[in-house]
Amino acid sequence: MQKIIKIKTDRSNGLYDITKDVAAVIKESGVATGIASVYARGSTAAIMIQENWDQSVQNDVITLLNRLVPHGIWEHDRQDNNGDAHLKSGLVGASQSIPVVEGKPGLSTWQNIFFCEFDGPRQQREIVVTVIGEK
Amino acid sequence: MQKIIKIKTDRSNGLYDITKDVAAVIKESGVATGIASVYARGSTAAIMIQENWDQSVQNDVITLLNRLVPHGIWEHDRQDNNGDAHLKSGLVGASQSIPVVEGKPGLSTWQNIFFCEFDGPRQQREIVVTVIGEK
Amino acid sequence: MQKIIKIKTDRSNGLYDITKDVAAVIKESGVATGIASVYARGSTAAIMIQENWDQSVQNDVITLLNRLVPHGIWEHDRQDNNGDAHLKSGLVGASQSIPVVEGKPGLSTWQNIFFCEFDGPRQQREIVVTVIGEK
Repeated sequence: MQKIIKIKTDRSNGLYDITKDVAAVIKESGVATGIASVYARGSTAAIMIQENWDQSVQNDVITLLNRLVPHGIWEHDRQDNNGDAHLKSGLVGASQSIPVVEGKPGLSTWQNIFFCEFDGPRQQREIVVTVIGEK
Repeated sequence: MQKIIKIKTDRSNGLYDITKDVAAVIKESGVATGIASVYARGSTAAIMIQENWDQSVQNDVITLLNRLVPHGIWEHDRQDNNGDAHLKSGLVGASQSIPVVEGKPGLSTWQNIFFCEFDGPRQQREIVVTVIGEK
Repeated sequence: MQKIIKIKTDRSNGLYDITKDVAAVIKESGVATGIASVYARGSTAAIMIQENWDQSVQNDVITLLNRLVPHGIWEHDRQDNNGDAHLKSGLVGASQSIPVVEGKPGLSTWQNIFFCEFDGPRQQREIVVTVIGEK
């Protein structure tokens, strides 16, 4: 089963928790044991598994990526002025495979699934969730 | 269904667009809805989803990785002098899971699938594509 | 089929080779051709495909990540003093999809599967391995 989650982003760079949305797709699929592939459509975005105790780690992710990938020094900036957004996306990665355990995302206590926006705000971003396994 | 894509690389560091090859494997599999796992065999290589409007982002990826992972300062260099290539590979990652949507790779408009060479040129590099899902 | 590999880690930062454990789960599953999803439970850990000729590349991975993500300068440090561990985890990534080829992990000669510990030592870390495919 496959569904597209659609979200709106309100910042240029930010992490958005999509754990509940992914869990809902898994539940609807009826799969008990398997894999949920989570994929960010957009080459200035990414998927990251990260802690969601509070906002601090999410802020730190943005701070780190701005340190590693400064804005405004890339060849691609001559086209879109968003070379850094593409590079952050490539470094973090477009997809994660999450195990489905007893019909739920097999995350540990503090793990959540985040959509990473690196070139927002955007009216609509799409995340493709594909669930495969045994019912 | 599973197929191995074989490519030749002509530079020490470079991105090679394999989107058409992956799309061909998906088409041959007959899978309409599912997952295509794309895996780089070789611990000095990687798979990245990235924009392919022109060469600029691909060049920027190489520039960034050379900044983050300088050549010639690693313990492994005493063996092969390619410590940086292994580290770039580990940072970007060997695999990506791409959704199969209506029998095609479920990429967004500007997303393409790239094989990343970090220790070339090589006569032959192998990418394993595995397609699973419903026909 | 799905199994949880449990390991003990003995360092604050270190790579642990779990290739044999993953191969054993694949063998037990009876799957000949497919995908093995390998997932690190814990937002201060990750999965990396890397060379295992000797310890040098593993040491270099830790050296690189300490360079890119210094300890003690993150907002999250006020909670747990482990902001760097979360960031390393997010950068490397929680999951890898490995092809199953003829009932074995479809790795190349020098590729091995590593669990990355960034906030150890820990009495128990869990890795979820899910194998899907044709028998």
